[in-house]
Amino acid sequence: MSSPVQSAWDNLRALPNRTLVELFEDGERVGKMGGRIEWDAEEGSNGILFDWSKTHLSDELLGGFEALAAATDFGGKRAALLTGEKINVTEGRAVEHTAQRGIGAEPSVEEAMALHARMRMLVEAIHQGALGEVKHLIHIGIGGSALGPALAVNALTRDLELVDVHVVSNIDGVALEEAFAACDPATTLVAVASKTFTTIETMTNAQSALKWLSDNGVTDPSGRVIALTASPEKAVEWGVDETRILPFAESVGGRYSIWSSIGFPVALAVGWDEFEAMLAGARAVDVHFSETEGRHNLPLRAAFADQYYARLRGCETRAVFAYDERLGLFPDYLQQLEMESNGKRVTSEGEPVNGPTAPITWGGVGTDAQHAVFQLLHQGTHLVPVDFIASIAPGDALDPAHHQILLTNCFAQGAALMAGGNMAADGKDPARAFPGDRPSATMLCDDLDAATLGALIAFHEHRTFANGVLMGINPFDQFGVELGKKMAKDIEGGEASFDPSTTELLKAAGLGG
Amino acid sequence: MSSPVQSAWDNLRALPNRTLVELFEDGERVGKMGGRIEWDAEEGSNGILFDWSKTHLSDELLGGFEALAAATDFGGKRAALLTGEKINVTEGRAVEHTAQRGIGAEPSVEEAMALHARMRMLVEAIHQGALGEVKHLIHIGIGGSALGPALAVNALTRDLELVDVHVVSNIDGVALEEAFAACDPATTLVAVASKTFTTIETMTNAQSALKWLSDNGVTDPSGRVIALTASPEKAVEWGVDETRILPFAESVGGRYSIWSSIGFPVALAVGWDEFEAMLAGARAVDVHFSETEGRHNLPLRAAFADQYYARLRGCETRAVFAYDERLGLFPDYLQQLEMESNGKRVTSEGEPVNGPTAPITWGGVGTDAQHAVFQLLHQGTHLVPVDFIASIAPGDALDPAHHQILLTNCFAQGAALMAGGNMAADGKDPARAFPGDRPSATMLCDDLDAATLGALIAFHEHRTFANGVLMGINPFDQFGVELGKKMAKDIEGGEASFDPSTTELLKAAGLGG
Repeated sequence: MSSPVQSAWDNLRALPNRTLVELFEDGERVGKMGGRIEWDAEEGSNGILFDWSKTHLSDELLGGFEALAAATDFGGKRAALLTGEKINVTEGRAVEHTAQRGIGAEPSVEEAMALHARMRMLVEAIHQGALGEVKHLIHIGIGGSALGPALAVNALTRDLELVDVHVVSNIDGVALEEAFAACDPATTLVAVASKTFTTIETMTNAQSALKWLSDNGVTDPSGRVIALTASPEKAVEWGVDETRILPFAESVGGRYSIWSSIGFPVALAVGWDEFEAMLAGARAVDVHFSETEGRHNLPLRAAFADQYYARLRGCETRAVFAYDERLGLFPDYLQQLEMESNGKRVTSEGEPVNGPTAPITWGGVGTDAQHAVFQLLHQGTHLVPVDFIASIAPGDALDPAHHQILLTNCFAQGAALMAGGNMAADGKDPARAFPGDRPSATMLCDDLDAATLGALIAFHEHRTFANGVLMGINPFDQFGVELGKKMAKDIEGGEASFDPSTTELLKAAGLGG
Repeated sequence: MSSPVQSAWDNLRALPNRTLVELFEDGERVGKMGGRIEWDAEEGSNGILFDWSKTHLSDELLGGFEALAAATDFGGKRAALLTGEKINVTEGRAVEHTAQRGIGAEPSVEEAMALHARMRMLVEAIHQGALGEVKHLIHIGIGGSALGPALAVNALTRDLELVDVHVVSNIDGVALEEAFAACDPATTLVAVASKTFTTIETMTNAQSALKWLSDNGVTDPSGRVIALTASPEKAVEWGVDETRILPFAESVGGRYSIWSSIGFPVALAVGWDEFEAMLAGARAVDVHFSETEGRHNLPLRAAFADQYYARLRGCETRAVFAYDERLGLFPDYLQQLEMESNGKRVTSEGEPVNGPTAPITWGGVGTDAQHAVFQLLHQGTHLVPVDFIASIAPGDALDPAHHQILLTNCFAQGAALMAGGNMAADGKDPARAFPGDRPSATMLCDDLDAATLGALIAFHEHRTFANGVLMGINPFDQFGVELGKKMAKDIEGGEASFDPSTTELLKAAGLGG
């Protein structure tokens, strides 16, 4: 007998696929498939419009996905997430990044507030000169400890940067040398961000950064280090003074850690109020996500579309294009969030999954990407669901033509993907034909400020979680990175044997054996 | 009756798929599936090892693809490319980027050499102070006019940067403002790179750059402009003095233009000799590509693997990970090269293609990507063929541990993808299981210098061309970008009507109508 989940999928697969043009015969479609998430703001932005009308979701498909959400106990799992139950079942952990935003189990929220208070004190003390003149911060971390800070610092420091932040992640020494070249050792702090405080890239880079400080006349290099970690005892062992350790909870996952002390470089660069605004924007999305049901829940609706394209249309990818230079790292951030969370093969119960899991998230920045990859979107053979993100308020103070052309192009691409056509004078040249009926969604922000950035990130966190629930997988472990780490250690150990290709490569590079 | 091309595909589809472990039962496999491309060098690098042994190409598949290459007249088409025939049939143009490297129709090679000589004179004159003190160059271009310069400047200026180059592409004024903030107007030149000298982003940014110079006390702003274009008459009209126009041939496509005067910022930043070394590395690949047959032709063999994964295994993507911080922009460069070239729906004859065309090229930098997306590569449900690129010689002067860990991780990832396994103590936890048999190819460079970068780019140009031949499509047009441009103009014109979603978005942003 078919399970309720299987029945929901069977029902979804039996529904008709309508073209976008057919779907727009419903004159109410834009209103039905759009929605805003808003927050209170005395100044700055107060919301984001999420327009999913140019996707292929029909009323019937929305109903079918609502049935799937019920069959997968979406409501129960959401409640478990937001009340600090141990939903990361393979690791036996709660998942409490929302507690950083004030939504979660009360003890976790209180702990987060206390740790935020401690972080705020250090940030403000540094701004007030407690560690002497500080012009630069080299933030060392990788993966979740790097992408969030890099994204937020890049997005929010265009007008004001209290401290010049350089995020270094790669073990390749070229990355660290680039930061050295841009910093004056006498006025540089080093943040070492690692949940376990054992990550090999981060600890190697941290050692080299200390050496650089020391080689350049800094008498107490480890006195210039701030540790951001869920393992404060390891940081103490490593030589960081307890007053400069900013802990965060074990239940905050690496790729969800920007809200915790991993956000220290953001607060240092833009000030505590801006960091708090980022948290507030995220909280507005948490509230919407926790209180809104079915198709009206915007991150859940986005996940419905994601599942439709991945499982009912067989799309191996989804693309996101930020029509805003400040969001240049957002596609990379989402790539990690979605692919590391949902790039899995088994369900939470350890059974093989019953269909494809996370698509490959890719994308770039508009208008640049129009001149690079949009050829394939318009005329290639692969169906790629596309998200556009743009801000109504400009980020620049140049001729308004810049921002106007930027937005016009963003909307024109979505219109063109859907409409199709033929650019030949006689309308008949196959090389100039566009099939159309290609989907896109648009997130239109009032402005791209800290609250909006927080809301955009939280929206995608919940979208990713919702996708995990609909597929029945655990988005919160990442065992897939372990085997490569082990084999790298085996190579260093020099004892294990490898396939003939790997052996030859090691020999060519003068490594191993 | 089946065409020879169709028969070749039918034959390929009938061949068995062997696992990587089975393929390595052939003790000669690494030698058979590896190969070096080399060049003469008194100092620096002299080659790249291309190891395709950890892909699923078997002897029979190689034979089958050689038959496909014969059926698609690969030899004839290669000759047509390299002798300047009009192989861009939809636009009636020759495709002569190799002429920039000395391989092609004699008049085209001579023209390229003359234009290079002119470019060299200007570069050296600037270095010698003919335009006063020059510390900064703002290079304005987009797509093919930006990605090549950005890639090469980022890769090659770690040790020496004669002039500080900022590449600006996006119409978003935030991009240009970032460059302004880093440059002193009194010592800044502006390069305007546009094949047609009409690209809206580039011309808008150029105008704003002139205004910035003028607003900041530069008395003759247009005297600070260098034009890089195939339409020199347009540059003259726009106000650039003829002595500061560096033309290139119409037959050089945008995404193949780094070898022409579009490479001006590279030569200005690293000096003419380095630019020539880049051309020489590319020429070594041209010679290999033109003189080597069948499976021994390394770019063609790479295309065999690409076609195998795209058409026989149904992969929608391929990934490239550069284990070198200096190649941070290489995945983006390849994304444009491959997706804009081969993201098509019709053959050169205008018939619908008989299978999928270009996959989505994506990727990133190692080791960063291991902490972001490798989860999906190891444990996701999508098969993704992966390319690794690394350099034996380090790019940094820090503790050798940095480069050793970098390379060890690169090789370990390839080994782990192939081997699979289970990380649980009892070897049975499904969440810790890795299926293995996942393919990768490795390009191992002696060193990452200008010649090597040139060779890597040329390798991928020819790989892309070979893929186009095997699929029967024209990789050299890009009509897919036209419809969006037209619709953006329609919006600006305010007359056309759009779908209800686009209309609402325009209204929300206060645009159009």
